[in-house]
Amino acid sequence: METTFRPSPSYSLTLRIEYPNTVRTLGRVTSIIGERGGDIGAVDIVKTSRETITRDITFSAAHYEHAQEIIAAVRQIEGIDVVNVSDRTFLLHLGGKLEITPKVPVKTRDDISMAYTPGVARISQSIADDPQDAFTLTIKKNMVAVVTDGSAVLGLGAAGPLAALPVMEGKCLLFKEFAGVNAFPICLDVGSDDELIAAVKAIAPSFGAIHLEDLEAPRCFEIEARLSQLLDIPVMHNDQHGTAIVILAALINALKITGQPIASLKVVINARGAMAAGIATARLLATYGVRDLIFCDENGALFAGRGDIDNAVMDATARTTNPRGVRGTLAEALRDSDAFIGFGGQAVLTPDDIAAMHRGPIVFEMANPQPEIAPESIENIARIIATGKSDYPNQINNMLCFPGFFRGLLEARAPSVTGDMKIAAAQAIADVIGRDELHEENLIPSVFDRRVAKAVSDAVIATVKKSGLARRVIKTTM
Amino acid sequence: METTFRPSPSYSLTLRIEYPNTVRTLGRVTSIIGERGGDIGAVDIVKTSRETITRDITFSAAHYEHAQEIIAAVRQIEGIDVVNVSDRTFLLHLGGKLEITPKVPVKTRDDISMAYTPGVARISQSIADDPQDAFTLTIKKNMVAVVTDGSAVLGLGAAGPLAALPVMEGKCLLFKEFAGVNAFPICLDVGSDDELIAAVKAIAPSFGAIHLEDLEAPRCFEIEARLSQLLDIPVMHNDQHGTAIVILAALINALKITGQPIASLKVVINARGAMAAGIATARLLATYGVRDLIFCDENGALFAGRGDIDNAVMDATARTTNPRGVRGTLAEALRDSDAFIGFGGQAVLTPDDIAAMHRGPIVFEMANPQPEIAPESIENIARIIATGKSDYPNQINNMLCFPGFFRGLLEARAPSVTGDMKIAAAQAIADVIGRDELHEENLIPSVFDRRVAKAVSDAVIATVKKSGLARRVIKTTM
Repeated sequence: METTFRPSPSYSLTLRIEYPNTVRTLGRVTSIIGERGGDIGAVDIVKTSRETITRDITFSAAHYEHAQEIIAAVRQIEGIDVVNVSDRTFLLHLGGKLEITPKVPVKTRDDISMAYTPGVARISQSIADDPQDAFTLTIKKNMVAVVTDGSAVLGLGAAGPLAALPVMEGKCLLFKEFAGVNAFPICLDVGSDDELIAAVKAIAPSFGAIHLEDLEAPRCFEIEARLSQLLDIPVMHNDQHGTAIVILAALINALKITGQPIASLKVVINARGAMAAGIATARLLATYGVRDLIFCDENGALFAGRGDIDNAVMDATARTTNPRGVRGTLAEALRDSDAFIGFGGQAVLTPDDIAAMHRGPIVFEMANPQPEIAPESIENIARIIATGKSDYPNQINNMLCFPGFFRGLLEARAPSVTGDMKIAAAQAIADVIGRDELHEENLIPSVFDRRVAKAVSDAVIATVKKSGLARRVIKTTM
Repeated sequence: METTFRPSPSYSLTLRIEYPNTVRTLGRVTSIIGERGGDIGAVDIVKTSRETITRDITFSAAHYEHAQEIIAAVRQIEGIDVVNVSDRTFLLHLGGKLEITPKVPVKTRDDISMAYTPGVARISQSIADDPQDAFTLTIKKNMVAVVTDGSAVLGLGAAGPLAALPVMEGKCLLFKEFAGVNAFPICLDVGSDDELIAAVKAIAPSFGAIHLEDLEAPRCFEIEARLSQLLDIPVMHNDQHGTAIVILAALINALKITGQPIASLKVVINARGAMAAGIATARLLATYGVRDLIFCDENGALFAGRGDIDNAVMDATARTTNPRGVRGTLAEALRDSDAFIGFGGQAVLTPDDIAAMHRGPIVFEMANPQPEIAPESIENIARIIATGKSDYPNQINNMLCFPGFFRGLLEARAPSVTGDMKIAAAQAIADVIGRDELHEENLIPSVFDRRVAKAVSDAVIATVKKSGLARRVIKTTM
């Protein structure tokens, strides 16, 4: 998941050491940690006595073995007793990252008679009379189910529902923090797509929208389509559309810089490393107006009739893309194209391949950890580079989309997700960067830009309103 | 759900009135509300001008029509303008009663790299390596699913999953308030028991225990049994066991007062109004040591071979109860018995029927709204009376059990629920009332007695420990 060997807060440890109070030992400890490549964050006194002093030293390492190496080196310092080592990431996860909080008091009998029985019977009756009241009088108003079966957990693959739970909890944190949306992780232990769909349909009454996450391709396409049809609340697979929307936002702004009209743009997508996002991006770009798009997988350019196509989604993609009928490898497909969107999976490109694109191309390297080509190696070839990672400029991260997108869906009580909403969201993310701020290294807003969620939410609400899908009179109150 | 005609906070309204500032109108308004039987809670000034004054008057009515009648009377007062009427119970439900709250910050990139990617991958890996880690490192540690299909919603019957949602939210409030347990309402839209069971099995990874609620009988028995067998986390149907446990607690204390040994006790249960609770109570009392129990339904005493038995649970009950082979009506079954536990459904008893019981009997009238006999009418006949309602002494309410019971199950990481745990919980509830406090009108603790949840939780933990079922080293930390 992380290729960098720089210290990362995700490997942050707290080392509790005890040593004689008479010698100046602390300096030796911090020196050793620094020499071995650790990054010291804090040094705190825990307790002192006449004889000894106990301190907590918090530092980041690059990875597990690196941390172990540093700890071993500290242990070898004479007079130092390593009392305890605690891993801040594990500490932070103790007991989970979410809790359920009452919004109303239940301290007295009067409280209970309103929030529970007998008063609650009137609320239930009101919903029984008009099911739409559930969108006003229950948690359904602002509650998203973050659903996975753990079949494609970022960095871990088919880790299963239990191992996916901390990741889904993390998604729920982001929903609340960035858009005030309540989200609950539903990790499904299911044996088939039918079971998954039945389970999501079953739990739908408690939720206002379904956010699918970390589902493997190609299963994800049919699961999303079938659930969208079955349910009267919106369903969106974030790995697909969250990512596609942010890529479109970046492309919209890239074209503002290069000035090229969308209709003449030649785009190549290599979806090998992330088929769900690749397909969704191809579809969304086509909806937006890209006419010349070549879709590549591990066997190169996809074209109608290619012999190895083994599922309906790839077949449809083959028939609706590649209008010039290009055949061959990814490198061959890239020749004279204007924009490359790579989801990685293997390092298959050289700087020459990028140089063979149309002059000053747009390159989005989404892959993490294995890009088609290292962004550093094409800095003087590509005019605009964006990546999926936070350590280059222009990070394309679906965090920019999903919190505000679902907020908009919930506020508008949209029954489903449409292409228009996705394009409106992409446009809104792009427009957060003003014309005067926009340049090659400032293509899209930071994930911490607080304007984004509100802009996306407003754009979704306006689109729902215009489409006539809204189930309520909407005030934008975020 | 509520038969009383006294004003109740569950019908609490706030009336906003505007009237000329020159006359003394407020007195007339409050008099009218009082005369019509409304109970004024608060009078607040909203604004005043030279000409007019605006006030909010909050009052409780007995029921909907009563409230409308009072409002109509206020409207007729000359000079009074009723600007707005708001129903506090509805206001309190706006947007639902629960929210999801982050326990960790996600304000900075460092926060995200620990709580989400890349750091979370180490937590997921740790769970993939040892699934038991999910009980430490995720919400599973302290999260209960409050599950219903809305087939037997208190007071409303088969209202469906959406209408059941505010009731389940209420249950979740009580879990958090009384035992610090996180609980999330799962209202299932399912067409069969198999679908219900499949859905609960599917969502189980996110939860540490399953609390079933408002499921109709006899379906509830098989659903609970099958889920308990399928899952490695505890499953308990609260309408059954929550209620049975509190009844046993009350009975334990009643016998301390009367001094009768359990082995000679003759008990009659009339389960007509609540088959789930009735069956569970019969089973738990038998486990506790009651030998002579007659189980009645709408056709009177159940006995082996009775012609109308149409399900396996009733058949088993018929075979294992009624050792004297009593036949006849409920009233006939009651003759010379020591204790009556009635779940109501119809007013089928007279004071003479209670007088025909053994001298100074124990009567638990659980029914609400329709008891077999009004408790007021037997105050001089029965020695000990308990009811399901809050307006008599000795309220038997399953709130006394489920929050602490699940807290104990979660803390001990019990894989299932046993009869020993139920009896330990009943004993713990009973023991909260000290020998010196115990008397006919102080049989069991109040639902607001903060000692109860802790006592129940500790009892469950100790029992799990003793049974060898515990999956962790337990510290009682509540």
